[in-house]
Amino acid sequence: MLAAAETSWPGHRLEVAGKLRLDSGVELGPFTIAYQTYGTLNAARSNAILICHALTGDQYVAEPHPITRKPGWWTTLVGPGKVLDTDRYFLICCNVLGGCMGTSGPKEVNPATGEIWGLDFPVITIGDMVRAQRLVIDALGIDTLFCVIGGSMGGMQVLQWASAYPERVFAAVPIACAARHSAQNIAFHEVGRQAIMADPDWCGGAYLKKGRRPARGLAVARMAAHITYLSEAALHRKFGRNLQNRQNFTYGFDADFAVESYLRHQGITFVERFDANSYLYITRAMDYFDLAAEHGGVLADAFRGTKSRFCVVSFTSDWLFPTSESRAIVHALNAVAANVSFVEIESDKGHDAFLLDEPEFFATLRGFLDGCARHRGLA
Amino acid sequence: MLAAAETSWPGHRLEVAGKLRLDSGVELGPFTIAYQTYGTLNAARSNAILICHALTGDQYVAEPHPITRKPGWWTTLVGPGKVLDTDRYFLICCNVLGGCMGTSGPKEVNPATGEIWGLDFPVITIGDMVRAQRLVIDALGIDTLFCVIGGSMGGMQVLQWASAYPERVFAAVPIACAARHSAQNIAFHEVGRQAIMADPDWCGGAYLKKGRRPARGLAVARMAAHITYLSEAALHRKFGRNLQNRQNFTYGFDADFAVESYLRHQGITFVERFDANSYLYITRAMDYFDLAAEHGGVLADAFRGTKSRFCVVSFTSDWLFPTSESRAIVHALNAVAANVSFVEIESDKGHDAFLLDEPEFFATLRGFLDGCARHRGLA
Repeated sequence: MLAAAETSWPGHRLEVAGKLRLDSGVELGPFTIAYQTYGTLNAARSNAILICHALTGDQYVAEPHPITRKPGWWTTLVGPGKVLDTDRYFLICCNVLGGCMGTSGPKEVNPATGEIWGLDFPVITIGDMVRAQRLVIDALGIDTLFCVIGGSMGGMQVLQWASAYPERVFAAVPIACAARHSAQNIAFHEVGRQAIMADPDWCGGAYLKKGRRPARGLAVARMAAHITYLSEAALHRKFGRNLQNRQNFTYGFDADFAVESYLRHQGITFVERFDANSYLYITRAMDYFDLAAEHGGVLADAFRGTKSRFCVVSFTSDWLFPTSESRAIVHALNAVAANVSFVEIESDKGHDAFLLDEPEFFATLRGFLDGCARHRGLA
Repeated sequence: MLAAAETSWPGHRLEVAGKLRLDSGVELGPFTIAYQTYGTLNAARSNAILICHALTGDQYVAEPHPITRKPGWWTTLVGPGKVLDTDRYFLICCNVLGGCMGTSGPKEVNPATGEIWGLDFPVITIGDMVRAQRLVIDALGIDTLFCVIGGSMGGMQVLQWASAYPERVFAAVPIACAARHSAQNIAFHEVGRQAIMADPDWCGGAYLKKGRRPARGLAVARMAAHITYLSEAALHRKFGRNLQNRQNFTYGFDADFAVESYLRHQGITFVERFDANSYLYITRAMDYFDLAAEHGGVLADAFRGTKSRFCVVSFTSDWLFPTSESRAIVHALNAVAANVSFVEIESDKGHDAFLLDEPEFFATLRGFLDGCARHRGLA
């Protein structure tokens, strides 16, 4: 079960003594960033890859999760000899600001008061997450990241990195993402937030102080979101109308169908590892993301003059971040004559495809990274 | 606010003294069917059209709703001189079994006990809904319905009517529906049910006895469902990323975006007119619907020998009941050489298009009905 102010999980902590000015105008500090690394930084400090995690991800990319004990969320890609080769690259992943796996967020203690933050934690943005990550990169003595890569909200961070700190990003790989969150996606997030806030155990956000947890609301939020991560085809292939351990309908409200049982399981297991308030904060950060709006409404201006190399990836059956969103990014990059590759991967696995075993996706990334490594002078 | 065992709403009631054997094996009775009619039945009793309503619809098709005072849900189509012409046809719409607008359902009183049914009400199916409607048609002395028409769950009932009572259906118009509920749609329904059942005010289904109502859970269920009734394009056109009565983000969890405000409003207004347990029962009936499964897995066998004329309608941007579902129905009808027209209407309004002002849709229905009326000998 997720506890407040956990400090025993493995990995690094950067304690930031100063203040970070957030997009909201609030000055946050002191604060903590929890991060994890894999592989070895070379002498030239030129082989670092920053991995940005998605909404419910964390820094445990390629090792068992300290709560669930399940394999890291990107073990498909990260490891010795894999696409993100730990024998070759130095990989870094930070738990995002507002998160719940060690980085400062609503479930941690506010040093100014000694109380758990709860809703007193300031609302953060994708820009704030990236500013916080930059402090880690600075602390590691890395001038230029060889690559910044991530899917979904991770992809938003990649775009923000490439826009805010172009000289520090040699290559950028935004996967299954968008340069702004759509109305439909904001709507789905709002359903999740309302489910959490409707739970009386949410206690106006102060549940940890009261020894309660809005587990039912958070589970419903997760269930609704989980549907959007899959495709109709994937759900049909996986479950169809199969019944769950029974031959006939029960004519009741138990989980008659396998897909119901699966969703309930998704909801129940999620609440063991995730904080409800973090879910509010991180979904809000995604909703607020609109890179064009920060540049006078012209997305191309977010990337003007960039020397970074981009590889934009989408998946055919992803209806949460459809290919049209990736195309908008590519058009903006083309408009400023950026170095950009774009690949739409044929897959019926929906948005979650970026986390799964997709050989064409892996081959695309490997090819792109090998090319970039040659240009970067990495053996 | 929705009260238990309401009897003052306008319209007809059929009190069924006997028992109806349900698909679950339970014998239900005595029970009540509330229905509404418009227009006049001709002497030959040959001009009757049965309208089947959707999940959250009711019998108030073309008159103000007795609770919300809003216009009837199909006033776009039903009225003097309109496509479903009340000067020409006799229109009937029954509140479905398990509903909450006068027909027997979980919020009504169980005559055997004098208590509100709650979860003691038997789980019903689309087949049961149609069996109950048939009793109304019998009571009205109508042998053959000129037409059975409906969208979404209403379309499922149309298919069930055409399959179960082919000799009593001259023409059938299933709109924006499917012959079986998909895994993704079951999943969305399950999220809604879990949202309701997670609300402590649901009280294990006995909230009416306890003077409580799971309004927050039902509102969340409605919000999640409402997104599926629209299209991404419609949400983008209507709301985009527009802010709600403000110039800047509030950096909080209020409804900053117009789409959030709209969704919250949908949730709040829905709970005034709908019963949470009815929502459980009716979504369950849709989940269970699988017309092919009732015929050895062969959908065509559901229609073998039919003499009814079919007009199957889908909408291009409907992702809840996509065109592929309608095509499956058309293929089955073609396989038994049924008389079938199929029209896919170009619309960006999503599933809800069947309730909206869609000229091509209206023209399609008018043409089909005029042709059927000529064959039926209606002036």
